[in-house]
Amino acid sequence: MENSFGKLFTITSFGESHSRCVGIIVDGCPAGLPITEEDIQREVNKRKPGIGMIATARVEEDKVEILSGIFNGHTTGAPVCLLIWNKDVDSSEYERIRFLPRPGHADYTAFMKYGGFNDFRGGGRFSGRITATFVMAGAIAKKLLNLISVEVLAHTIEIGGIKAKPRGVDEIKENVDKNPLRCADPKAAEEMSRAIEKVKEEGDSLGGIIEGIALNVPVGLGEPVFDTLEGDLAKALFAIPAIKGVEFGSGFSAAGKRGSENNDPFTIKNGKIVTVTNNAGGILGGISNGMPIVVRVAIKPTSSIAKSQETVNLKNMESASLEVKGRHDVCIVPRAVAVVESMMEVTLCDFAMRAGLIPEVIK
Amino acid sequence: MENSFGKLFTITSFGESHSRCVGIIVDGCPAGLPITEEDIQREVNKRKPGIGMIATARVEEDKVEILSGIFNGHTTGAPVCLLIWNKDVDSSEYERIRFLPRPGHADYTAFMKYGGFNDFRGGGRFSGRITATFVMAGAIAKKLLNLISVEVLAHTIEIGGIKAKPRGVDEIKENVDKNPLRCADPKAAEEMSRAIEKVKEEGDSLGGIIEGIALNVPVGLGEPVFDTLEGDLAKALFAIPAIKGVEFGSGFSAAGKRGSENNDPFTIKNGKIVTVTNNAGGILGGISNGMPIVVRVAIKPTSSIAKSQETVNLKNMESASLEVKGRHDVCIVPRAVAVVESMMEVTLCDFAMRAGLIPEVIK
Amino acid sequence: MENSFGKLFTITSFGESHSRCVGIIVDGCPAGLPITEEDIQREVNKRKPGIGMIATARVEEDKVEILSGIFNGHTTGAPVCLLIWNKDVDSSEYERIRFLPRPGHADYTAFMKYGGFNDFRGGGRFSGRITATFVMAGAIAKKLLNLISVEVLAHTIEIGGIKAKPRGVDEIKENVDKNPLRCADPKAAEEMSRAIEKVKEEGDSLGGIIEGIALNVPVGLGEPVFDTLEGDLAKALFAIPAIKGVEFGSGFSAAGKRGSENNDPFTIKNGKIVTVTNNAGGILGGISNGMPIVVRVAIKPTSSIAKSQETVNLKNMESASLEVKGRHDVCIVPRAVAVVESMMEVTLCDFAMRAGLIPEVIK
Amino acid sequence: MENSFGKLFTITSFGESHSRCVGIIVDGCPAGLPITEEDIQREVNKRKPGIGMIATARVEEDKVEILSGIFNGHTTGAPVCLLIWNKDVDSSEYERIRFLPRPGHADYTAFMKYGGFNDFRGGGRFSGRITATFVMAGAIAKKLLNLISVEVLAHTIEIGGIKAKPRGVDEIKENVDKNPLRCADPKAAEEMSRAIEKVKEEGDSLGGIIEGIALNVPVGLGEPVFDTLEGDLAKALFAIPAIKGVEFGSGFSAAGKRGSENNDPFTIKNGKIVTVTNNAGGILGGISNGMPIVVRVAIKPTSSIAKSQETVNLKNMESASLEVKGRHDVCIVPRAVAVVESMMEVTLCDFAMRAGLIPEVIK
Repeated sequence: MENSFGKLFTITSFGESHSRCVGIIVDGCPAGLPITEEDIQREVNKRKPGIGMIATARVEEDKVEILSGIFNGHTTGAPVCLLIWNKDVDSSEYERIRFLPRPGHADYTAFMKYGGFNDFRGGGRFSGRITATFVMAGAIAKKLLNLISVEVLAHTIEIGGIKAKPRGVDEIKENVDKNPLRCADPKAAEEMSRAIEKVKEEGDSLGGIIEGIALNVPVGLGEPVFDTLEGDLAKALFAIPAIKGVEFGSGFSAAGKRGSENNDPFTIKNGKIVTVTNNAGGILGGISNGMPIVVRVAIKPTSSIAKSQETVNLKNMESASLEVKGRHDVCIVPRAVAVVESMMEVTLCDFAMRAGLIPEVIK
Repeated sequence: MENSFGKLFTITSFGESHSRCVGIIVDGCPAGLPITEEDIQREVNKRKPGIGMIATARVEEDKVEILSGIFNGHTTGAPVCLLIWNKDVDSSEYERIRFLPRPGHADYTAFMKYGGFNDFRGGGRFSGRITATFVMAGAIAKKLLNLISVEVLAHTIEIGGIKAKPRGVDEIKENVDKNPLRCADPKAAEEMSRAIEKVKEEGDSLGGIIEGIALNVPVGLGEPVFDTLEGDLAKALFAIPAIKGVEFGSGFSAAGKRGSENNDPFTIKNGKIVTVTNNAGGILGGISNGMPIVVRVAIKPTSSIAKSQETVNLKNMESASLEVKGRHDVCIVPRAVAVVESMMEVTLCDFAMRAGLIPEVIK
Repeated sequence: MENSFGKLFTITSFGESHSRCVGIIVDGCPAGLPITEEDIQREVNKRKPGIGMIATARVEEDKVEILSGIFNGHTTGAPVCLLIWNKDVDSSEYERIRFLPRPGHADYTAFMKYGGFNDFRGGGRFSGRITATFVMAGAIAKKLLNLISVEVLAHTIEIGGIKAKPRGVDEIKENVDKNPLRCADPKAAEEMSRAIEKVKEEGDSLGGIIEGIALNVPVGLGEPVFDTLEGDLAKALFAIPAIKGVEFGSGFSAAGKRGSENNDPFTIKNGKIVTVTNNAGGILGGISNGMPIVVRVAIKPTSSIAKSQETVNLKNMESASLEVKGRHDVCIVPRAVAVVESMMEVTLCDFAMRAGLIPEVIK
Repeated sequence: MENSFGKLFTITSFGESHSRCVGIIVDGCPAGLPITEEDIQREVNKRKPGIGMIATARVEEDKVEILSGIFNGHTTGAPVCLLIWNKDVDSSEYERIRFLPRPGHADYTAFMKYGGFNDFRGGGRFSGRITATFVMAGAIAKKLLNLISVEVLAHTIEIGGIKAKPRGVDEIKENVDKNPLRCADPKAAEEMSRAIEKVKEEGDSLGGIIEGIALNVPVGLGEPVFDTLEGDLAKALFAIPAIKGVEFGSGFSAAGKRGSENNDPFTIKNGKIVTVTNNAGGILGGISNGMPIVVRVAIKPTSSIAKSQETVNLKNMESASLEVKGRHDVCIVPRAVAVVESMMEVTLCDFAMRAGLIPEVIK
């Protein structure tokens, strides 16, 4: 079940970068949810590379197809199978570097773990392309969360050391789709673009930070001690290739604060208990406290770079140097925004179902 | 199964701070492992508050008892039940603040989620005391990991903004037990002590950062795409109260680096493939690459503080102010070091079993 | 997780026949359920051997203790740990036959699987005593099922070839506690007693059949295709030692019927859809149909018998003959009745929770 | 995860009778296993209706396609997605009886559970067609079991009350493919054929019994107390529509035997411990004992029959009569033989992996 996630709302991912398709099974989705291929397509499109400056090598239409579980425009209660056919598949470059593991990439560990039988073409199972399947599942989770008014959004807050200015939720919603960087601070977005342009020319790559926010999350999601909201969100997010850090609320900066600074005082607003600040990122004791859930993920710079790197030839165990050809994403951060959103949605949907907030049949 | 963790090496935690005991079931431990109450006691003792300056209110002997699964000094293959009786239980203070949730604590979310039926005494299920059960499980995992030469160590690298100087693994091993802060940099440890002393007088608290390192981890642990090594380690670590961030290798700092800086070049050393640097923290594509696994966790300052704080009375929904009496840990970081170590051990042990590296019977 | 069962209402069993205790963790029980040690004790007492003729060697008080998860007479939402201490433990006979596996018993397979490290005393983990832990869990499940009016009863319908006459549900409820055989047909019960008496003198043993019935089960429990109601009930029931067959409704006799005989026609009764007959045993397509759930389990004759049997000495691999001394149950059927009831309750409770019929907090 | 089965070798089934396809994900299959579409096709073909007398309405080629997880003729370690497209789909008859649940079928429970959103066409998710996906998974499990010499076979032993004479394993292997009834007793097979012919003319249906046998199963498979070999096999088998009973070894007949008759004495044969008889069906204490695993399943007569039956119109809650048109299987027993075999293979493969008998990489 290593390719499954979620206890009641369970997703099972399959497919490799150059296999016939990539797809996902969504098991446990209540019956009666109205959903169309277009609903899912819309979300998958958010993962597309931005027009213009941020190019990926592979331009596929990524057309979503529903194979099962949806009938007459509604979920049936049976597992939903969604897939995207792989079409644009030139494997020649991968044959060339098959035994030259790219530094920072899963080439080496996959080769070792699967005894060289892994489908190495395009990174195989370790390709960012797999995350398109996460977004398909997220599209269904999003619909279910809408029923209980939960809304998830994600945005780029840092690329290549350039930080976006903090913005309010409304501004984030308004701005995030306005630039291909998916950054709510237009000025920072421009700088990020320039940084990416520059690094691209140098044959190098950049990382960054994405922030995910979940609004209107009811109090009580999370099942401690092990199935905490932080724990399962983190697990879901670490499934996204290149994520190397996850923090909630004040996160790592909490380490340097005092309790009197970091504790969020309780108060009453509109007859409801809220906290004055949100250093907890909406989670106390692994359970949502009704405040926005705030998570930030660190994304390392893309490992595939044009610059020459030192590696080892797995065939003859000799040192070798490697230049990865083809056009890889210089920075995957903007494209990963939709994926972060989706994995948050999948996780929150599962917890909402565990808390009994979503019925077995949607009417 | 929300209180269970691990697929083949499964731990199930139970008990509240003031219930009759806290305990853990270890299910899936191979038969034939030699283990005694002393072996487990030794690890649990590491979680004890340091002599002198860092006091906790509660002084119990925390004596480990084996109830099942171990016979003639060896595991039987049946579930191992380990527990510690709760003895020193003064609940009066908790009765007083029962309806006054402590800011930053799980009081509020637990009250809401469990409809006020939660055992609020001593924080109940959300007490740091529960982590003693994690350490008992870790003691068994440690023994199993030893069979395949895997060694896990954790140490304090920051408290209250005071950072320890980076040290080599040997120095960490040597120094970590020498001061109650479990910090490998003796000078920083002294400063940390003073900072804790000072903050204690002010009725406040401090957080910090712990680093965990796993040595000699074989290549190939981790089961992507969802059961990644990072994902499951993070999930395990977020079960420790007060942890708000988890990062691997260069972690959040990777966000500001270039691929050419952050990628770890492969090379050959003693006939084995290694990486020159370890920005990946020993994990590529969710799978161990044979380098040390390096994880850092951010621990927020203890939420229970003596200083007056603003809260809401859950009974009458009126604003209230709260001063938490009793002697709480000013800083739990030093005590959490053993817990971080244990949760890493439990997770790695589960993955080692999933990879078939630990036999069903130890001979 | 091999010692855990149930997805949302999860039980984790531990303990061996001669370890310090046998116990169970119930995880996922909603908060607020009123329950006392007496409630659980009452159910455990049903598993006691009958006064008089049907003796077991071991007479313990089997006193239930609650260690966690229940506070002020209500569940807290935290895992409930229940145990019974083992007191009356004479292991000498087991030392004698340690390497002489009893035919029909788990001695041989346990020895082989656990490399001889298994706790062989009293059958260890394979003792019928472990089922006392199932009954403790069942007592909690029973309380939860009561909230939705589901009632489970079990009764002996055959022992040693003597079959009870079919009785209506009311008669079963009335009669089952009136004789130590837990048989609703008093005349058959008398014959069964005599048969047991006779076989006991011959140093032999008897098996039988138990029927379990669940009343008022709402339509819709069961999660096909794999988590069917039949499948999970069967899995739960096969955890009871000595059960070798499970059938629902007309069961094996359906194999010889025609569709027109075996299909249960639908009709309307009191404004509700019901079936005229109940050959389906209340389950269609793995989902409850609102009719009583009817399951029958075949229990093999007790394997431990006084008569001389052929076996092999595991130490020297030579043929040997074995007479099991001590007083074993001649027929465990009557005592297993409460266990069948409990495992049905645990399973149905889990499915009721999965269907969202039992809230997270009981008010 | 209700559509997933297996802990390490996990299958996830999807698709409805008239959705675009039916398919299965096999997750956890070791890398390096050589397998082709032909290997899987061969097994799926065994599920086809026999030539001549035993017709099913639907004649599809049932062509297996591999979508992922297999590369260069070997498994990659990534999830294997296998599917069969649905082509021959006339839904008109199902539209007609949409609100007239067929007695004995899942129509009613599916309608109620999924609020009428279930895909009712062709029985939707409850169609026997779904079992084709089980056979695809079984084909992979079979290959893995072959590596450790485990062989599974199933055969018809009873149809419509006509019992096959007991045959030895060699004879079963030789005869089972020789007649469309998959019965090792040619004479009984002929009688069964005639019985089916006759019942078909009457617009009725027949049930029967299938026996499954697993040979060369090593001692030690099964993970008590809950993941017993009987329990998981039973759960797997009850996923096959129409199965209403499962028994192992002497099964229900054990209920009438004495211990001295039913216990299987141990003896030594060719230096190995074996049992003289096999009333245990190869399983003691939920663990394989090295003898053949013998299981029998009761299959009820097909619920869809041409004869007029009483039902209720779900739309207006009025009594109605129903004649199911179209050509349904009069008796599914022969076609279910391959499915029983497959579900046994899937279960045994999972247990073999849990016992560490199948490596992560096949070389």
